[in-house]
Amino acid sequence: MEEKVSQLRSRLAEWYDLRKAAAVLHWDQQTYMPPEGIQARGQQIGTLLRLAHQCFTSDEMGRLLDELKPYASQLPPDSDEARLIKVTARHYDKDTRVPPEMVVELAELTAAGFAAWQTARAKSKFAIFQPHLEKIIDNRRRFAALFAPYEHVYDPLLDEYEPGMKTAQVQAIFSALRPQQVELIRAVTSRPQVDDSFLHQHYGEQEQWNFGVEVVTKFGYDWQRGRQDRAPHPFTTSFAIDDVRITTRFLTEYVGSAIFSTMHEAGHALYELGFDHALDRTPLADAASLAVHESQSRMWENLVGRSLPFWQHFYPRLQEIFPSQLGNVDLHTFYKGINRVEPSLIRVEADEATYNLHIMLRLELEIALMEGALEVKDLPEAWNARMRDYLGLTPPDDARGVLQDIHWSDGYFGYFSTYALGNLISVQLWERINAEIPDLTGQIRSGKFSALLGWLRENVHRHGAKFEPVELVKRVTGSEIDPAPYMRYLKTKYSAIYGL
Amino acid sequence: MEEKVSQLRSRLAEWYDLRKAAAVLHWDQQTYMPPEGIQARGQQIGTLLRLAHQCFTSDEMGRLLDELKPYASQLPPDSDEARLIKVTARHYDKDTRVPPEMVVELAELTAAGFAAWQTARAKSKFAIFQPHLEKIIDNRRRFAALFAPYEHVYDPLLDEYEPGMKTAQVQAIFSALRPQQVELIRAVTSRPQVDDSFLHQHYGEQEQWNFGVEVVTKFGYDWQRGRQDRAPHPFTTSFAIDDVRITTRFLTEYVGSAIFSTMHEAGHALYELGFDHALDRTPLADAASLAVHESQSRMWENLVGRSLPFWQHFYPRLQEIFPSQLGNVDLHTFYKGINRVEPSLIRVEADEATYNLHIMLRLELEIALMEGALEVKDLPEAWNARMRDYLGLTPPDDARGVLQDIHWSDGYFGYFSTYALGNLISVQLWERINAEIPDLTGQIRSGKFSALLGWLRENVHRHGAKFEPVELVKRVTGSEIDPAPYMRYLKTKYSAIYGL
Repeated sequence: MEEKVSQLRSRLAEWYDLRKAAAVLHWDQQTYMPPEGIQARGQQIGTLLRLAHQCFTSDEMGRLLDELKPYASQLPPDSDEARLIKVTARHYDKDTRVPPEMVVELAELTAAGFAAWQTARAKSKFAIFQPHLEKIIDNRRRFAALFAPYEHVYDPLLDEYEPGMKTAQVQAIFSALRPQQVELIRAVTSRPQVDDSFLHQHYGEQEQWNFGVEVVTKFGYDWQRGRQDRAPHPFTTSFAIDDVRITTRFLTEYVGSAIFSTMHEAGHALYELGFDHALDRTPLADAASLAVHESQSRMWENLVGRSLPFWQHFYPRLQEIFPSQLGNVDLHTFYKGINRVEPSLIRVEADEATYNLHIMLRLELEIALMEGALEVKDLPEAWNARMRDYLGLTPPDDARGVLQDIHWSDGYFGYFSTYALGNLISVQLWERINAEIPDLTGQIRSGKFSALLGWLRENVHRHGAKFEPVELVKRVTGSEIDPAPYMRYLKTKYSAIYGL
Repeated sequence: MEEKVSQLRSRLAEWYDLRKAAAVLHWDQQTYMPPEGIQARGQQIGTLLRLAHQCFTSDEMGRLLDELKPYASQLPPDSDEARLIKVTARHYDKDTRVPPEMVVELAELTAAGFAAWQTARAKSKFAIFQPHLEKIIDNRRRFAALFAPYEHVYDPLLDEYEPGMKTAQVQAIFSALRPQQVELIRAVTSRPQVDDSFLHQHYGEQEQWNFGVEVVTKFGYDWQRGRQDRAPHPFTTSFAIDDVRITTRFLTEYVGSAIFSTMHEAGHALYELGFDHALDRTPLADAASLAVHESQSRMWENLVGRSLPFWQHFYPRLQEIFPSQLGNVDLHTFYKGINRVEPSLIRVEADEATYNLHIMLRLELEIALMEGALEVKDLPEAWNARMRDYLGLTPPDDARGVLQDIHWSDGYFGYFSTYALGNLISVQLWERINAEIPDLTGQIRSGKFSALLGWLRENVHRHGAKFEPVELVKRVTGSEIDPAPYMRYLKTKYSAIYGL
């Protein structure tokens, strides 16, 4: 069996290398590639991902897994090897179920759909995007049907991003959360608004870069194993456990963008840098799920980076770098400003208190579309109705409403809820960490993050994708994914800021 | 047959994409990769090149070529399709003859050999490198034996870099050239030396960068289809016909390095940017040979970039950028300084007049080693003897003698002569261009290069690897590869500079 495991590892290493090579090409495309390189780059990434898929779904892989599954069941269930075989078999079963033609069809539909979405958004005309979206949804419904029987037609889509999670679980979580968040926002918006005008001044790009680098270096981001580059949309990408890179962008008229985005991406990167090297070049050298990934980015961005102790340490430094902009803004004014709550139309600009409502709205619409309970042509109206209910706002046009996100044009159905679940998980972990590191607040106030990072590495990062997200959260916190800690956190934080 | 051609093209596209992906990974390794990324990067490039090799040497490729070869013989012999089948079959025949174990063995020998060479050079002790070099040469002799019968044991090595060229041809060319070059250098060194001390002052890096960009932009390097980055050793790399990138480095105490290196690399890049798009994703989207590649880089670096007309246009601009360094240096003094001839120990620092002698020395030693006429242990002595004969210098140690180049430690036997052949070809082309564009000198004096670039595109670049180097030179100049034009060029140039 050792020989079989070694054969499995060798095939997986090939698959892994091809995917990581594609990641390098994609990173280059987003950072440095000259414009005319785009056509060839698409072909190259396509070839690499096609070969990776062929390698992973090969008959030889199937035979190896069939031979190894009985062996795996005799191993300690939490051992790397048992998990490797289990997770690989799970991916194999899913990937071989989908006919290549369906994948090609989706690629074609989304290529056309993305172009149509861009035009539709520019003209703020949903009708331009509608026929494309109908075809994409039809493709996704046929995809889901491949996995019948299921509890819910949306389950197979969700499973793409949150292995093992069910639609009913997510619905239950969000049903508990929604009324409390709506109530909190009503309470906050009934209070006098806090000032954040000082954030909207001219802030030099190089100074912003330097401050961000200083912060994430203190977080523990290792520049021997990563780097930062500029990109139009910030992202994190991993080429190896020892090469995980972040990107950022700068708004010279708003200092909040780069600061929090840099911490967010560093949070993602610290996760992938923490994978156990024993998992290298296998499907286990990956995040447990997108929600767990997002729990890490949100933790460093929000629970650390928007906290008062963090700024007790870093604010004097920021004032030193930007004396004319912030010299006369005291710490508490600054802290309140970066935590200003304001219902808004655009998800990516939303604050911590309102963000999840943007997600719930999308999840409900996706489920209704997949169920057939909502037709695509009625989507703008359904969108706007929920915006009024949840945030009290009416989009003035489709561009600032149903057309704002890229995800649907790319076929990413099932993705959105991972953002909100990540928020919830981040606070569940945070409560646990604070129980185990009683002095955490004091450490953050001193600009020390090594105990926090050490805890995350030991309890979350090193496991990679060994455990499904629900299992991981249970192992670490003893609990299911639970919205209560998140609501406690929001209420405590905003009660202080808004004097509720 | 159309269906077969299309199958061939589709396999070649996969091979091409894998190799170009490897090139992106290599470029990133040389420019931006964080240090700890190196181990995974080696694995990834290894996987990509292995899969490319598998794809190219597959049985299916063999069958397709067997079926297509008779068809190709009925096509117009210079058509893209006939040449595609011919060149692909040639590569296939060569690549399938080499057992994979020999390739793996060379990779292992050169990995160890490179490390030993680094140590040996640092300590200037050839004995440290000697046993490694012996094994590498043994591997290369067994490689050559795979291609028996041959006219000369060195032919199969040369053929790796100069398709179709024979050792006897190169020896004949160099035999004619060597005495003339030695004589010219004796004449030059008997005259008073020209001053170039003004080149060795402090020159700001950003200003050097800006000047280089200005020059290569005027050459016609298209920034929509390329870019420049910093790298420890300048190189050019191509990811697609529409994405060919250059790299450069800066010495702040010597302005000559970056200026001429940037023009050199741009010359390489303009070649690959000029391949006909019809050749895309095939082995024809490649240089005819390394010598032809070098003819392009040397042309822009030397025939253009070290010429008086070029500096008649650009020198005022350089003076403007560096007023304190060059304000009091007149054009002719500058021109003589950048063309100073001085026999030196190190190949990469050699001037136009002495460079080829460094190459001939290496070629003769490589041939003797392959023939068995020279033993590795006697290499340092043989090296030093030739240095005395050709350049009148004796290396004070091995580091500045036989250990100076990386090539042998990497297994690159057969490579060196391409540098000298490139010089010769560049002047053969240059004579032809001047005959067809009588006003070329005037155009260069006005900073205009579009007719020159247009001529190169039409006569050299667009053909890619359709023609073997000797055939290409013959088509364009009507002549074999010939040292006479090069000697004429050197004599005319240095007679004026040194008053011979």
